[in-house]
Amino acid sequence: MEFNQALDKLKEVDQKVHALNHAEAIISWDAATGAPKNSVEGRAITLEVLTSETFKTLINDEFNDLLHTLEDKKDNLDPITLAKVKEYRDEYNRIAKIPAKEYSAYTGLRAKSSNAWEKAKANNDFKEFAPYLKEVVAYNKRFAEYRGFEGHPYNTLLGDYEKGYTTDDLDDFFGSLKETVVPLVKQINESDVKLKTDFLSKYYEKKTQLELSDKLLDIIGFNKDSGTLCESVHPFTTNFNKNDVRITTHVHKNNFTSNIFSTLHEGGHGLYEQNVRDDLNFSILCSGTSMGIHESQSRFYENLIGRSYAFCEYLYPTIQEMFPEQLSSITLDEYYLGINNVQPSLIRIEADELTYSLHVMIRYEIEKMLIDGSIKIEDLPEIWNQKYTDYLGVTPKNYSNGVLQDVHWSEGLLGYFPTYALGTAYASQLYNTMAKSIDFDKDLREGNISNINQWLIENIHKHGKMLSPKEILVSATGESLNVKHFTDYLSNKYSKIYNL
Amino acid sequence: MEFNQALDKLKEVDQKVHALNHAEAIISWDAATGAPKNSVEGRAITLEVLTSETFKTLINDEFNDLLHTLEDKKDNLDPITLAKVKEYRDEYNRIAKIPAKEYSAYTGLRAKSSNAWEKAKANNDFKEFAPYLKEVVAYNKRFAEYRGFEGHPYNTLLGDYEKGYTTDDLDDFFGSLKETVVPLVKQINESDVKLKTDFLSKYYEKKTQLELSDKLLDIIGFNKDSGTLCESVHPFTTNFNKNDVRITTHVHKNNFTSNIFSTLHEGGHGLYEQNVRDDLNFSILCSGTSMGIHESQSRFYENLIGRSYAFCEYLYPTIQEMFPEQLSSITLDEYYLGINNVQPSLIRIEADELTYSLHVMIRYEIEKMLIDGSIKIEDLPEIWNQKYTDYLGVTPKNYSNGVLQDVHWSEGLLGYFPTYALGTAYASQLYNTMAKSIDFDKDLREGNISNINQWLIENIHKHGKMLSPKEILVSATGESLNVKHFTDYLSNKYSKIYNL
Repeated sequence: MEFNQALDKLKEVDQKVHALNHAEAIISWDAATGAPKNSVEGRAITLEVLTSETFKTLINDEFNDLLHTLEDKKDNLDPITLAKVKEYRDEYNRIAKIPAKEYSAYTGLRAKSSNAWEKAKANNDFKEFAPYLKEVVAYNKRFAEYRGFEGHPYNTLLGDYEKGYTTDDLDDFFGSLKETVVPLVKQINESDVKLKTDFLSKYYEKKTQLELSDKLLDIIGFNKDSGTLCESVHPFTTNFNKNDVRITTHVHKNNFTSNIFSTLHEGGHGLYEQNVRDDLNFSILCSGTSMGIHESQSRFYENLIGRSYAFCEYLYPTIQEMFPEQLSSITLDEYYLGINNVQPSLIRIEADELTYSLHVMIRYEIEKMLIDGSIKIEDLPEIWNQKYTDYLGVTPKNYSNGVLQDVHWSEGLLGYFPTYALGTAYASQLYNTMAKSIDFDKDLREGNISNINQWLIENIHKHGKMLSPKEILVSATGESLNVKHFTDYLSNKYSKIYNL
Repeated sequence: MEFNQALDKLKEVDQKVHALNHAEAIISWDAATGAPKNSVEGRAITLEVLTSETFKTLINDEFNDLLHTLEDKKDNLDPITLAKVKEYRDEYNRIAKIPAKEYSAYTGLRAKSSNAWEKAKANNDFKEFAPYLKEVVAYNKRFAEYRGFEGHPYNTLLGDYEKGYTTDDLDDFFGSLKETVVPLVKQINESDVKLKTDFLSKYYEKKTQLELSDKLLDIIGFNKDSGTLCESVHPFTTNFNKNDVRITTHVHKNNFTSNIFSTLHEGGHGLYEQNVRDDLNFSILCSGTSMGIHESQSRFYENLIGRSYAFCEYLYPTIQEMFPEQLSSITLDEYYLGINNVQPSLIRIEADELTYSLHVMIRYEIEKMLIDGSIKIEDLPEIWNQKYTDYLGVTPKNYSNGVLQDVHWSEGLLGYFPTYALGTAYASQLYNTMAKSIDFDKDLREGNISNINQWLIENIHKHGKMLSPKEILVSATGESLNVKHFTDYLSNKYSKIYNL
């Protein structure tokens, strides 16, 4: 293929893929926020056609030739085109090396496996799900073989979500967490300090809760002309382009801070998407660069801002005013301590800031062993329960609250979990650098997020997919992932809260 | 192309076109119901890619060959495949005979023309819009030449919206309307009877109005598991498939019956879509057969049910209970007369049941002359005003409330307007037949819509696009369009109301 022809064709493909992604994303958004019950079948049919159209557009010899043509003259490419070529090459390699028949069989398996998991969880029956999980793991192992890997086969899967990271990185990372956080949790479990939390589970009216989330979005600078907030069962963020970013929250009437932290969390994801540089808009590059970097933004707004004392100083009087009946007798300190209460529990998505990463660590340790074959599926529940007992001091009494709690494995998302913990750690590392130039506490006490936003836009958001997660972290903080920023943050914060 | 190969390929094309239509429809639905302000550009980009993808799928030599292959052996086709072939052949012919360059230039013109119309309407300046309208009309005339026509060139345009109808049909139809309705309106204008309407424009709380529309959907049997009701500026209906039908209403706080009749109107469209036979679902055939037949359903629920005395007997006590402050002193008769008040006005979309078709007639008369070249664009405002004066007894004082009021012409929708009046007339003809087997008044007094629904499902809804509008009308009522059913209905109803 001729160079100029390849350039034109790449633009065309990029536009088409962007449009198909937009269509798929809005159909999924609608499914979670407003679609009627019986829409399931029609949505599945349409999504299958659209994804297969994307597949046909990207995975074919002509497109491979096109990429080769551009790769051969990569010195002649502008930086955006070069980044697109890299992105599409990754996508091509992810799929093209897998025999088409196996790939399509795997797609079918994932659908069946998700259904089986849903039933198994409802019936608290691990055996129902085990054969599907076994097959999903087998496919992922085989795919890693087809695609090739260096070191551990898990590296290939991990790379789909957090490019450039390996089991060596994660072993170090989770090793340090284990050393620091496990004993810290143990100390807290044994501590006499009991924080007041009963006021959090009073009845809080839905309408006022939604007014509060609306205010929060204004405070953190989410652009409501370029995005919306809706309700869904599980909060999430999706983006069609930088001017159309959708986030959701869920209101629990007897757990009102859930809505606050969901809004801040998804708002953080949303800000990232809204602030990618303009010239990447409507292309494959206009989105967060990785799951981990995305999570660093959501956790930054949720934890480093939302659960900080300084931000509570600013926000709590407003919250108190909105819910006078429930909160007039609760002091600022009681509120701050209440939302930072540590309570080791069985369920990851309900975990507090301190114990959250331990839930993720357990999944990482298990996934690695599943992929290298050092454990059997049948032994999974026992291994799961043992790790919860060892690291968190709690033991699941059934499968639904234990090994069956997460949807991820049923959908084949092996290698995804670690990004939750990596992102949380990145956030602390970013904070550490940011604090050198921004008076964080002063700004937060005044509800002034603009300096923080500006810093994140300049160092993270604007790059979109132009830089890899490792490149972004180094360019923003001057160093690779350094877990110490995270463990220090946790130790300092929770030692203080629990008088350790 | 081989016969079996053509069959398989048709299925594939039909699935793809259905999926692309689903995607386009949901993006447009979202635009009207929830999208943020800045989403405009991204939506336009995506819709352009999706429509061009549909175009590429349908308008090419290979697909033409495929259709020929199947048309050559049409006796071997099952009825559904045959209907699909006809449908896609119509679509092919509609576009393929037009030189590609002109078609694409016209698409660009429509976008510019819509913008120009919007500004012209806001500025009350016909001259701003006139050059665009001139070009739009010229393109439509040229397209009719390319595509070929019998009799009047307008027939080709009309056929896009109401297949099988010609200017001869419409001249007869509107001729009869003019003879009956124009003098009736004149009599009412001169009548001493003045109906009480002040209670309609009191303040009615939005929340309760929405509860009422929700109840109305249950009453008429709209399946909420297979559809939703949302709010939008202009009410409309869209369908992704028979199990996912979206309708909207608009709440005016000082015009509470607007919401009632919008809900019944869109609910009627929605019922049609939900009740197409199952084996057409997810295909091009799973939708109402024409604009006119669609409008017959919406007008049936809005007017023949919603504005009937018997239905008011059933519904009004509920409405009164929901709005005791506003309605406790208003009797059933006052309510019935109030919602059937005739008030000739300048604006089509605000017109009452009696005068509505005259607004449409004016547009038809003008469109026909525009296409055969017997009037000049410059003279349009004067002609428009004269017709309003002659037929309705009211004269526009400015362009915005006159010739610039409708979006249709700016978007190239010439030939569309007549379907609004045809549909309303079909509704009366259907009622006339239905009343032979159903005790309409008794059912409505009891709020029992099931016999009516069953009749419409059997005679209209279930057929989807398997029958043409003319075929459906004959199969349902035993005769072609007979305007007398409509004019008799109007004469009887309004003579009684106004003691004529």
